[in-house]
Amino acid sequence: MNNTNYIKYLFDYIKNMTFGNPGVIRETYGRGENLTHKFLIKELHKSTKDIVIDHGGNFIASYRGANVDKTILIGSHLDSQKHGGNFDGLAGVIMGICLLKKFKETNFIPKYNIAVMGIRGEESCWFPYSYIGSKMALGCFDEKLLKDLIRSDTGKSLQFHLDKCGFDSKGVSLKKTKINPKKIIAFIEPHIEQGPILEKNKISLGIVTGIRGSFRFRNAQCVGKYLHSGATPIDYRKDSVLATSMLVSEMNEFWKKELKNNKDLTVTFGEFFTDKEEHSFAKSSGLVTFCLDVRSNSKIMLKKTKNILLRNIKIIERKTKTKFNLGKETGSDPAMMSKKLITKFQFSAKKNQIKSLVMASGAGHDASVFANNNIPSIMLFIRNQHGSHNPMENMHINHFKDVFKVLEDSIKNF
Amino acid sequence: MNNTNYIKYLFDYIKNMTFGNPGVIRETYGRGENLTHKFLIKELHKSTKDIVIDHGGNFIASYRGANVDKTILIGSHLDSQKHGGNFDGLAGVIMGICLLKKFKETNFIPKYNIAVMGIRGEESCWFPYSYIGSKMALGCFDEKLLKDLIRSDTGKSLQFHLDKCGFDSKGVSLKKTKINPKKIIAFIEPHIEQGPILEKNKISLGIVTGIRGSFRFRNAQCVGKYLHSGATPIDYRKDSVLATSMLVSEMNEFWKKELKNNKDLTVTFGEFFTDKEEHSFAKSSGLVTFCLDVRSNSKIMLKKTKNILLRNIKIIERKTKTKFNLGKETGSDPAMMSKKLITKFQFSAKKNQIKSLVMASGAGHDASVFANNNIPSIMLFIRNQHGSHNPMENMHINHFKDVFKVLEDSIKNF
Repeated sequence: MNNTNYIKYLFDYIKNMTFGNPGVIRETYGRGENLTHKFLIKELHKSTKDIVIDHGGNFIASYRGANVDKTILIGSHLDSQKHGGNFDGLAGVIMGICLLKKFKETNFIPKYNIAVMGIRGEESCWFPYSYIGSKMALGCFDEKLLKDLIRSDTGKSLQFHLDKCGFDSKGVSLKKTKINPKKIIAFIEPHIEQGPILEKNKISLGIVTGIRGSFRFRNAQCVGKYLHSGATPIDYRKDSVLATSMLVSEMNEFWKKELKNNKDLTVTFGEFFTDKEEHSFAKSSGLVTFCLDVRSNSKIMLKKTKNILLRNIKIIERKTKTKFNLGKETGSDPAMMSKKLITKFQFSAKKNQIKSLVMASGAGHDASVFANNNIPSIMLFIRNQHGSHNPMENMHINHFKDVFKVLEDSIKNF
Repeated sequence: MNNTNYIKYLFDYIKNMTFGNPGVIRETYGRGENLTHKFLIKELHKSTKDIVIDHGGNFIASYRGANVDKTILIGSHLDSQKHGGNFDGLAGVIMGICLLKKFKETNFIPKYNIAVMGIRGEESCWFPYSYIGSKMALGCFDEKLLKDLIRSDTGKSLQFHLDKCGFDSKGVSLKKTKINPKKIIAFIEPHIEQGPILEKNKISLGIVTGIRGSFRFRNAQCVGKYLHSGATPIDYRKDSVLATSMLVSEMNEFWKKELKNNKDLTVTFGEFFTDKEEHSFAKSSGLVTFCLDVRSNSKIMLKKTKNILLRNIKIIERKTKTKFNLGKETGSDPAMMSKKLITKFQFSAKKNQIKSLVMASGAGHDASVFANNNIPSIMLFIRNQHGSHNPMENMHINHFKDVFKVLEDSIKNF
């Protein structure tokens, strides 16, 4: 099997194994994620026997370098959204696997240890929390969450699922780890871009400068009153569809205004639904459930957006006689990538005549946890098609190979 | 059992029999409606043996008057919304039943025949169509709809349900009727107001001048694209939640503007939901399903509103790169109540020192079908609380008895 065929084989095998009709389903600490980890560990065994699984279920496969006291870590997450795309973080892990395979086949000894990491639980659709696996790997996971986080499809706790998979929730709560952050001189996360920018500009590689932080209200509600659509005059209404629609429209106007000021921001209401049991075309709606996801590379911008949100809610509550309840808030801090690593990868790209674009990451990624734990970190975005988190997500192998070439060159000349 | 206790008994018996946890469930040509008809026919048998059931399943119980060639018809519908309130149209039928009972007990012979009618299928939440029963009763039901209309909870056709209940879909399609419109000198529909106006003004009786017409899109959609909430810049989005929210907000602005011009209008988006299988806080939504109910007493206003709707959709489609599909349209024409009957009931109310308010009906009612079939028609609204079409709907028996007094006096002096 040549290199292209091997890459395709890995992607296709995992796609078939975790097919979600449509897309793929790789649940955090569930069937799809487990199968993917198991299969990739088996593949890694062809290149190295030094594979450990940490308390949170992440695997770290190390390939020995000349200097064994320093490690370059290459990794990403292997879970997916429900009916998500096959490439996403998987591309990053497969790229690391291909690199170890090449080193092994050519008997190449790198300057430092090179480790490939398969990370658990990055997609926060399963548990309402980001970066579970990477936080456990670095011993910074808040142990209270083991019981508090409930998986959306099973209703069972993170602790239950962790232990059911055979991992060690007690070790996690004691902040035990299998990697030593002080020995990691670089964390490199290859990942598909997920956005349209590389595709539109026909560039294979994005070199990431920073990762946005966020705040989220995953289970917010607007409470109004079910009232007859014909018999209730406008001044007597308490219409939760109208109130939430006004909030969506107002926050979109705010977003557009901040973009004109060159601020970094996204505002998304991904879920918005009336109650199937009670709603009707002949009643104004008494309840809307919705969620809000706000992202920015600036802490100040996140704070400003939350203030505007709360101000808009107050105004709309008064106008529509409804009541908003935002529910529990989650979120993450923005993170900066290593300037030294950015320069290094820019250099390798130029040398290998691979066009690259230095860009910010709109989405959140595990690399932000490594960066915020003072590990020099970098993300390599791979050009892809049709966005991500959806069954249509696509990636061409030749773009993957372009990024691989830059990764290989950088590591060889680290 | 005195009169008040009898009225309470009828309401409570039917409420318990059709309890919908919460509210009541009386499905059009289903369990709750059937049980209610059966029970009330049994009650009517105490006052008259002349009870017929027409091809569409409506019952007509006639009490013989001095002049048997002319009939005053008192009636309303007996189905309810899903988890609706107990009073709604039922109050109108019970009022007619109480009148026949009083006539029978006092051996009173009215000038004309007095008939009480229990009408089927008025709540268009079960079949997406208004006034099924009254249209069948008057032989103006479009027979194509027998197969086309599908009940929302069973997925079966109107014809299936009609015949399953033992009625005669063939007779309906042949426009067969059991009443002769030429003999009906008045159709009187007592019904709770459903709105807050009588309650706010502490008036027991509303005398209705006209009934609004409507247009509805019961199953409209906005199609966008599921795209990563962080990685997709604003210009690449196709966000169906944003697009539909903009439409809701714009149509509300239009409504408010027309109210300032003293136009009669309601605009309601009662259902608005993203797809539970595919939506997520981390994606902009690719699909919103929604419905729209627009009502006015003016045909011109209905037309203008539809034009504004279509114009807004075009603008929003362009702005958001989404596509709206409104689906099938249903609706009804506005109807005017009889001026003579309005004067007659105003006179009786004054005479009996019952405060009344002459007002338009915001909601649609069977009386509009009778009026549009050239039968002099009137509606008597009964003061009620907490709106209608919801489990909290309420009505006080003393207000019901105020309206009964006016009805009795009018009929006795017709």
